[in-house]
Amino acid sequence: MDIRIVLVEPLYQGNVGSVTRAMKNFGFQDLVLVNPCKLEGEARAMSSHARDLLESARKVSSLEEAIDDCSIIIGTTGIAGSRFDLHLRVPGYSPSEMKERLQGMDGRVAILFGREDNGFTKEELKRCDMIMTIPTSEVYPVMNLSHAVAVVLYELSDIQSGDTPLADPFDMRLLYEHLSELLVDIDYPEHKREKTDLMLRRIFGRACLLPREVQTLRGIIRKVQRINKNEDEQADDS
Amino acid sequence: MDIRIVLVEPLYQGNVGSVTRAMKNFGFQDLVLVNPCKLEGEARAMSSHARDLLESARKVSSLEEAIDDCSIIIGTTGIAGSRFDLHLRVPGYSPSEMKERLQGMDGRVAILFGREDNGFTKEELKRCDMIMTIPTSEVYPVMNLSHAVAVVLYELSDIQSGDTPLADPFDMRLLYEHLSELLVDIDYPEHKREKTDLMLRRIFGRACLLPREVQTLRGIIRKVQRINKNEDEQADDS
Repeated sequence: MDIRIVLVEPLYQGNVGSVTRAMKNFGFQDLVLVNPCKLEGEARAMSSHARDLLESARKVSSLEEAIDDCSIIIGTTGIAGSRFDLHLRVPGYSPSEMKERLQGMDGRVAILFGREDNGFTKEELKRCDMIMTIPTSEVYPVMNLSHAVAVVLYELSDIQSGDTPLADPFDMRLLYEHLSELLVDIDYPEHKREKTDLMLRRIFGRACLLPREVQTLRGIIRKVQRINKNEDEQADDS
Repeated sequence: MDIRIVLVEPLYQGNVGSVTRAMKNFGFQDLVLVNPCKLEGEARAMSSHARDLLESARKVSSLEEAIDDCSIIIGTTGIAGSRFDLHLRVPGYSPSEMKERLQGMDGRVAILFGREDNGFTKEELKRCDMIMTIPTSEVYPVMNLSHAVAVVLYELSDIQSGDTPLADPFDMRLLYEHLSELLVDIDYPEHKREKTDLMLRRIFGRACLLPREVQTLRGIIRKVQRINKNEDEQADDS
């Protein structure tokens, strides 16, 4: 399994340097930075002997670029946060639960870490298939960014890849678009569509679909759409 | 169970601050600093909302002061290091193995973290009952101090205390002194004594002895000493 770490708009260069050190400590190499802060002396100092990783990190200007070749997108968030977007964050898996879910898979997985101050935007959270939350004290749940990365990679460092292939990222996107389309086709209440879209993404995201499962699901949706369309036409004819 | 974090002569105040933050994130409070560096603005900045913990940390001038009321002393070391003191470091338990060992116990446990540059001295390692090692990549095994603390506390944060009391620290010291005495009494080869002392400490350390087990062991040693002494006297008489 290829595990990619994605830092979304990190603000402090010391943290980025520390993240590369933690990655190298646990044997991870694939780092993508979305619109990072300047990376200068302090980042290099904190990276210590992981400076190669700091220098080879890919910098991109949008989250989409960072993850478009990944089959599963995992967002790491703190427990705390406004109740407002609670449905975006549940269910949240602990790092050890996440390890169990990913065990035996083969494919590329992106693990996202948000900004030090504001975490993820709502749109970014929506893009995640699964949410991972490190169990922390309620008194002070907000971890330092590089500590969060260290804990997650410590947990995932002995994950056993297998030969169960993860669905292609492109096919997963088609599936989600297809599901959205279906909600429109069946006149699903408009004000519920966004939440339901997200719920479907969370369900199929945490199921870690195989390639043929995606094809079968899309076949079923197509069939439903066809019947639905015929009925509409018959209704129009009558 | 009371878990105490002991930083032995930390060199960088930013690390000490980060350690307090990680401790508060995972619900730990008992921090003792042995001869720490100056703790000023940077330590406070890195401690973030754990400044109370930074300010209440106890500062002492010797390791002994930091741990004399602890039943079990655990030293955290990297895998790497000179072969020279290999016997001091084995067996090393991973944080999850350590959690299993401590599960169900009741008492005070000290977890020691060494200097950022040179780790522990040989004398300090000898004082440890058990050694804990975070499994890291061989390519770059040296973790940042606060990352190591974060990973260990993440693992230990859901430990279940029980009602199995750990032996009293004072009684454990008496047991070890008694064992050393025994080696002398039985004319154990002098050049092997130091290593054997350490080995005995490691064996009884990882056994997490109960109070009555310590008493029984000391009773056995006393009996052996008495017989040994009588025989010596008889040998002298004849």
